[in-house]
Amino acid sequence: MDIKDEIKEVFAALQTKRALVHHITNYVTVNDCANVVLAIGASPIMADEISEVEEMVGICDALVLNIGTANERTIASMLKAGCAANTKGIPVVLDPVGVGATSFRHTNVEKLMKAIKFSVIRGNMAEIKTIAGLEAKSAGVDSLDEERDGAAIALHLAQRLGCVIAITGKIDLVSDGNVCYALHNGDSALTNVTGTGCMSTSLIGSFIGASKKALASSVAGILSMSVAGEMAEKNKGMGTFRTSLIDAISQMNVKTILEKSKISPIK
Amino acid sequence: MDIKDEIKEVFAALQTKRALVHHITNYVTVNDCANVVLAIGASPIMADEISEVEEMVGICDALVLNIGTANERTIASMLKAGCAANTKGIPVVLDPVGVGATSFRHTNVEKLMKAIKFSVIRGNMAEIKTIAGLEAKSAGVDSLDEERDGAAIALHLAQRLGCVIAITGKIDLVSDGNVCYALHNGDSALTNVTGTGCMSTSLIGSFIGASKKALASSVAGILSMSVAGEMAEKNKGMGTFRTSLIDAISQMNVKTILEKSKISPIK
Amino acid sequence: MDIKDEIKEVFAALQTKRALVHHITNYVTVNDCANVVLAIGASPIMADEISEVEEMVGICDALVLNIGTANERTIASMLKAGCAANTKGIPVVLDPVGVGATSFRHTNVEKLMKAIKFSVIRGNMAEIKTIAGLEAKSAGVDSLDEERDGAAIALHLAQRLGCVIAITGKIDLVSDGNVCYALHNGDSALTNVTGTGCMSTSLIGSFIGASKKALASSVAGILSMSVAGEMAEKNKGMGTFRTSLIDAISQMNVKTILEKSKISPIK
Repeated sequence: MDIKDEIKEVFAALQTKRALVHHITNYVTVNDCANVVLAIGASPIMADEISEVEEMVGICDALVLNIGTANERTIASMLKAGCAANTKGIPVVLDPVGVGATSFRHTNVEKLMKAIKFSVIRGNMAEIKTIAGLEAKSAGVDSLDEERDGAAIALHLAQRLGCVIAITGKIDLVSDGNVCYALHNGDSALTNVTGTGCMSTSLIGSFIGASKKALASSVAGILSMSVAGEMAEKNKGMGTFRTSLIDAISQMNVKTILEKSKISPIK
Repeated sequence: MDIKDEIKEVFAALQTKRALVHHITNYVTVNDCANVVLAIGASPIMADEISEVEEMVGICDALVLNIGTANERTIASMLKAGCAANTKGIPVVLDPVGVGATSFRHTNVEKLMKAIKFSVIRGNMAEIKTIAGLEAKSAGVDSLDEERDGAAIALHLAQRLGCVIAITGKIDLVSDGNVCYALHNGDSALTNVTGTGCMSTSLIGSFIGASKKALASSVAGILSMSVAGEMAEKNKGMGTFRTSLIDAISQMNVKTILEKSKISPIK
Repeated sequence: MDIKDEIKEVFAALQTKRALVHHITNYVTVNDCANVVLAIGASPIMADEISEVEEMVGICDALVLNIGTANERTIASMLKAGCAANTKGIPVVLDPVGVGATSFRHTNVEKLMKAIKFSVIRGNMAEIKTIAGLEAKSAGVDSLDEERDGAAIALHLAQRLGCVIAITGKIDLVSDGNVCYALHNGDSALTNVTGTGCMSTSLIGSFIGASKKALASSVAGILSMSVAGEMAEKNKGMGTFRTSLIDAISQMNVKTILEKSKISPIK
């Protein structure tokens, strides 16, 4: 099946089923994540108390774990929620924010990956390289050489972990271990507002909650953000850009995505 | 006294006294709540450390408890702050976010209601039904039949608890146990941005902090949000709508409220 | 060296070095702080887990401690991060939000000040007076008399603590113990959105992270906010004002600052 047809499918799924997306996420961008989930047509729930996350994830369609401001308490909640989601067959998406920055993050992401089967892991190149056990110097994919190297990393890691790996940057790379797509959309302004990475992960969570399709949901989630970044007003400054970005996502549809997306499979 | 005259009174009270509103609230919409309290002309304080909430509530005019992302630690702080507020005669407003979703929420809202005398409880239909001990399927009041049933629930629960019950939805219902008002304002876009419920509760907290009048403050707080929702720009998308909503609240005045409000008493 | 030349230096430093600013801050305004740091050209990191803050601060260029919603857990993290920053020669900026409101805040700010050498402390008049051990009635500097008194407080406290003291209000006062500058920029609308104080502190953190110059960074950080407040759209309401404020900061440059700033040394 062509990836564009798969994108149509996950957009259609979200129109049929208003997915409920449980987040255990950071307090920096949590409001943006909630708004972007609503903007794309899903419903957010944020809850991190360990004694309720198992029950909460049970009424949801997807779980997003984001370690941006994780602490010992919330890591324990993530472990419990993630295992419960696995048991119930609810897809889990991981955003390993800054995993290479501290041993606390590194150790706990390893713990999460050991305990939980993820459907998708989305990070920037440095984060994904850290997870892959590679030296993480580069923060993004900026050139064709890097695109080829990045695709190899995404493919191998996806194969090894049995989950979709999404690397976002100037060029985005998404692989399920069989194929790898390079997405050439986006705008540099997206790096000048906080939370565009977290929001992309939440968008993936919205699509996968409705469709259960990990690869197409990752492509659709990332494209929703990067195409919106192209459409949003950039001349007035970063406050207006951010508002306009949410505007664009709330008016996003599959027609716009398919027209504007620049997807190329990498061999 | 006519409800419109009571609304005039609570707006006038807020102009005379810039109420300080202590919140123990969720980290998803806390920034929106702070901004909406400022926009209506009151001052927000957010603090949840158990060793300071008693002292903090003592310098404030109202306390808002919102369980959106509550955990064991913050529930303990809510209990302490609420009891202190009761002792000092400071009105307490409860927003039982998602109370029916987990037993953690249900149990703790019962604990809060047992320990604290609330002036106002504001929730959607499902939340209020859960508190009333009824089966909670419907999420909102959409029809005249539901309006009649909802009014009966609001009236009985308000009588039983001795506090104002405010049910928000397509139609809003507010009762003090003696009368019940149906408010036919608002816009469906309000459900497409996060926090409009939380913000309504914070607006109620702002009015009650200045006026100490529970019924009129609840009507005024809810109308400030729903009339603003009618006035806000909706065609550009949900980012602009959200910005425009705060614009409208910051320029709200009693004249606009009285002109635009559609209030009907229910017998 | 003239203060205007020093401002040029710190702006130039931030253009040369994209400072990484570690925050342990409140959950009310954390998203605004992250966005304002990005808008001025630095990079924010928010992390408060005690087992990672030492490592995190080690990869950063400045540390901002803001006690807005501090609790026992995060105060411990602040102490650890601040001491680590001191050891490594990384400048630390304190925002003692509401320090006079509760004994929890007062006690813990004293603990922080005893354990950590701060480069800059920024607060409103009431907060700085509390730190200086003076009775704190006035919340701002509104008149020339208050300007003279405030300058004396700033100068003496800066001398005693060996750090820059920045008092923000209608008139801003910044002293390193030798000189004191009064800044006559800003707009009253800045008090009608939440977080403009916190954001000013984060802007100071951004400049000091790049330049290591405490006095000029404090002046530049405060002016970036107050000049942006003058430039931002105020007629549509507080939602638009807030968006426009971030727009102005993201387009701020040293030329605009120097043209618009009204700086007067106080003898």
